[in-house]
Order: sequence, then structure tokens, then C-alpha cells
Amino acid sequence: MGVEKSVAVVGLGSMGRALAGAFVRAGFPTTVWNRTPGKAARLVAEGAVRVDSVEEAVAAGSVVVVCVADHDVVRGLLRPVGGGLDGKLLVNLTSATSVEMREVAGVAGVDGYLAGAIMGMPQDIGTAGSSVLYSGPRSAFEAHEEVLRVLGEPVHLGADHGLSSLYAGAGVSLMWSVLNGFLHGAALLGAAGAGASAFVPFARRSIATAAGWLAGYADQVDEGAYPGVDATIASHLTAMEYLVRESEASGVNAELPRFIAGLAERAVAGGRGGDGYAAMIELFRTPSGPPGRATG
Amino acid sequence: MGVEKSVAVVGLGSMGRALAGAFVRAGFPTTVWNRTPGKAARLVAEGAVRVDSVEEAVAAGSVVVVCVADHDVVRGLLRPVGGGLDGKLLVNLTSATSVEMREVAGVAGVDGYLAGAIMGMPQDIGTAGSSVLYSGPRSAFEAHEEVLRVLGEPVHLGADHGLSSLYAGAGVSLMWSVLNGFLHGAALLGAAGAGASAFVPFARRSIATAAGWLAGYADQVDEGAYPGVDATIASHLTAMEYLVRESEASGVNAELPRFIAGLAERAVAGGRGGDGYAAMIELFRTPSGPPGRATG
Repeated sequence: MGVEKSVAVVGLGSMGRALAGAFVRAGFPTTVWNRTPGKAARLVAEGAVRVDSVEEAVAAGSVVVVCVADHDVVRGLLRPVGGGLDGKLLVNLTSATSVEMREVAGVAGVDGYLAGAIMGMPQDIGTAGSSVLYSGPRSAFEAHEEVLRVLGEPVHLGADHGLSSLYAGAGVSLMWSVLNGFLHGAALLGAAGAGASAFVPFARRSIATAAGWLAGYADQVDEGAYPGVDATIASHLTAMEYLVRESEASGVNAELPRFIAGLAERAVAGGRGGDGYAAMIELFRTPSGPPGRATG
Repeated sequence: MGVEKSVAVVGLGSMGRALAGAFVRAGFPTTVWNRTPGKAARLVAEGAVRVDSVEEAVAAGSVVVVCVADHDVVRGLLRPVGGGLDGKLLVNLTSATSVEMREVAGVAGVDGYLAGAIMGMPQDIGTAGSSVLYSGPRSAFEAHEEVLRVLGEPVHLGADHGLSSLYAGAGVSLMWSVLNGFLHGAALLGAAGAGASAFVPFARRSIATAAGWLAGYADQVDEGAYPGVDATIASHLTAMEYLVRESEASGVNAELPRFIAGLAERAVAGGRGGDGYAAMIELFRTPSGPPGRATG
């Protein structure tokens, strides 16, 4: 772009230190701030400049990256900064909900603010294993893409500042679902003396099969029609009840299949038994009551 | 093998009809029986022979395939057959638990019996989209592999007759986990106005990432040691609690993330907070109480 960019990193937890380290190694002038100054020692030795206030950090960077404990900390740190962010890009990589991410736009201004979510661990930052999701104005993303690329593959999701949190949450939720399904299956097979490693190739094939159905399911969801072309929710429920009995008979924990069957049971009770499995989206869209109370 | 094989199919529900049809089209002499004889009409027109009793069907086939409503029906049909199965192969493709599948060995004899689980829908039978899992003696599987291949890719899992049900259950459980995770994520993104189709590529990447971890997790499970090399269960729990809040704040159903977080919470309470996620297997191995009661 002709103009040399400088970076400020606010917050030096293990992730913040990894971010600042990547910027330093990429040759960007990097200013760092942390509530506890000692965290900056190694970064300063590598070439970063440590400052004593968030205001100084913001003044020093054309791109200001904030990665702190939670949204309350973000709010507290940005309040006194006020107009200091004018003309700069604020990149908020703090773990927060979509609602919280949108709230920050009120402080930073919509145009100079990207919300982000890091898909990886601190040790992945700056490697091929790291990807960062961003949401906010595309113009801001494109103007700073070269800087953002230092941290990992930058992905722009859309203008709504809540999208990066939502995608990240949906993504890790899928990961936990896969891991829980695998570990429950491994427990079931383990009860018959089969090792978990022997289950891996079959598990991966089952996962890939289900992943292959997603585009068709998504079409049904987007169209709001769920023809039961292959199997209906009612027939899935019958198979789920087998899995509950299998888990009980094998002496392993039956809560996961019971939870899955319980959702399908309610969909059937709600008149969705003849629909395809994608119709379960209607149940997932329905707000649940307070914790511990099932919704009817 | 030199000797021409003949097949009997007992049970002509939609799956049984698909199985018999595949054998007829592959050129095997095929005898069929069903409690309601009318179900055989089309198969008879294609060349199958319909008989009036299970005993006649068993007498006519060197391979006897049973695919009926449930294990109770299997038990009732096989009781009068007795020694009629000597020298034949019984293939039980009825949906049943591992315990039930093992029980059939008492009637059929261990050596002449394969338990099986069909991974596909009736319309997939005989196509590349179909695979059938078998368990029981390898010698019986190998002696009849050419016949079994007519139905779909035959996979032999081991000598324990319970394995096909266990693998099939674990496999479909993983599929439901993937689908629920995807649909909950789509509901979350939908609340922000994003379409489900836009979520598919990202969802598939998240799924593939988690699938890539399984071999390492399986090693930990098989070794019984769960070092938290990347993230600990405690750190996962923090991220899960974000997803619960995100779901609540977005006005979608929070039961799936609450269920996932509830499992992790108990693992942490049980002293597993510093372990890697694979340690969740210990919880999945612990028998759960009766439905509706959480285990501590």
C-alpha cells in the first residue's frame, strides 16, 4: 500500500504473546502492552517496544490487535481510548459472543473494526495450521489483509461483526460433536475388547459419509422443506433407540445416545416424524428454557 | 468354489426385498419366504422361488439370509429350524444389539453363522454406495465372500458376533453427532441471517480437522494416558461455556452445547481438567444410571 504498517498488541497472555511474536518476526514495528509488564520481556528482546498504557499502544500502531481475557476487559480497556482509534484498524481477537463483538463497534466505529476468531492454538500462530476468521467491513479486511496474513490464513465472513464468533462457535461445536461421537463409539467397542485405533478408519469413513450429506441438508434448510428422501426422523429414532439399548447392554454410558434420541423423539412428537433429518433444524432454532429444563 | 451356491432370504420388508432382488439379478438361485406372501410377487416375477415355510427356505439355500423386524422375530423363526442349518451359512442382517447377535450363535452354531449390519438404505443394496459389516468366524466369511459381495462391499470385523452391531451403532452415532452439530451451527448462523449453504465448506473443514485428530486420540485411549498436549478439558470447557452463552444470546436452542459442556464439567469435577480431551473416554465408559438421571 506504500505506507508502512505498524502493529500494537494489547494483551500478552499465551495467545497475545504468540500474535506479537509473529508480527515481530514478520518485520512489523510492534508495540505491546500488558497489565503485567513482565510478560513482554522476551518480545522486547526480540525487538518489540513495550509501553505503559493502552493509549500509548493505540497511538503507536496503525493496526491495533486486542486479545485479552474476555469482553469485560475489552470494554474496560477501550473506554478511555475514545477517538484515539480514528483512522486505525482495531482487530478484536478476544473470545467473545457475537453480541459482545457487535457492541465493540460502538466504541471503535464500524469502519475501522474487525472482529476475529482464531482457529488454532498459540503454537499454531504464523504457521500453515492457523486460520483466523474475520467479520466486519470487507474494505477494512482487504486494506489490511497482508498484515492479517502474518497470523494465519485470513478468512473474511461478512460485514456483520458477530459472524466470526458465530462461525467459530459452530465450528468447534462440530469438533466436540465428532470427538464425543468417536469416544463414545470407542467406549462401546472397547467393552467388546476392540481397541480404539482399530475403530479409526471406520469412524473416519462414517464421518466423511455424513459430511457428504451436508450440502443437501443445507439446501433443504435454506428452502425450508425437508422431504424424507432417504430416511425419515421416525426411522432414525428407531435406530437411535437400538443404540441406547446397545450402550446399556454393553455397560457403557448411554447419555449421548439418549440425548440424541431425546431430540429426535421431540421432533417426532412435534409432527416431524415423516420429514428428513434436516428438519431437526426447527428444534435447534427453538429457544430452550433455562438450564436443566427440557423444552417440549 | 466349484459348488453352485443358492440363497434363501427370510423376511421381505423393504430391505429384505432389496437383498433378494440383488441375489436374483446376480444369477443366484434365490428362495424367499415372508409371513405375508404377497410381498414376494415382484421377486417371483423376476425369478425367485417363494416357499410357504422358513424350514423350506432354509432347506433350499446354502446361504440363508435373515432380515426381519427385530431379534424377537429372529428367535421365533429359528427355533423350529433346529439342525436344518447344519452345513449352511446363516447370515443375520436383522437390526439387533451385540448381545442379541451373539445369542443367535446358540441356535445356528458358531461356525455357520455371520452377524451383519447393512450400512445403507434399501435403494443402495447392490450398488457402490452399500457396504455390509460382518462378524463371526473369518473362515465362514471368506468361504462366502463372493455371495456376500452381491449386496455391497463386505467388511469382516472379527470373530465376535457382536462386533457388526457395535461398529454399526458407533458409526451411525458419529453420523448423528455430525448432523446435529451441523444443524445446531446452521441454526446459530441462521439467527444472524447467514444461510446454511454458506456454512457447509467451513463445517466440512472443521469436521475434517477433528477427524484428523482421531488417530492420536485413539493412541491415547489405547495407552490409557491422556497428556493435554494441545488443549486441556478445562480449556475446552471454557470454550464450551462461550458456546452456551452464544446460543442463549442468539435465541437458539442451547441444549446441545449445554449437554457437551455438562459432560466436560463432570470430567473436570472428576479430576480430569488437566488432561487432554481423549480422557473423556473414561466418562463414556462409566455406566449411566436409568434414563433421566445424570451420573456424578
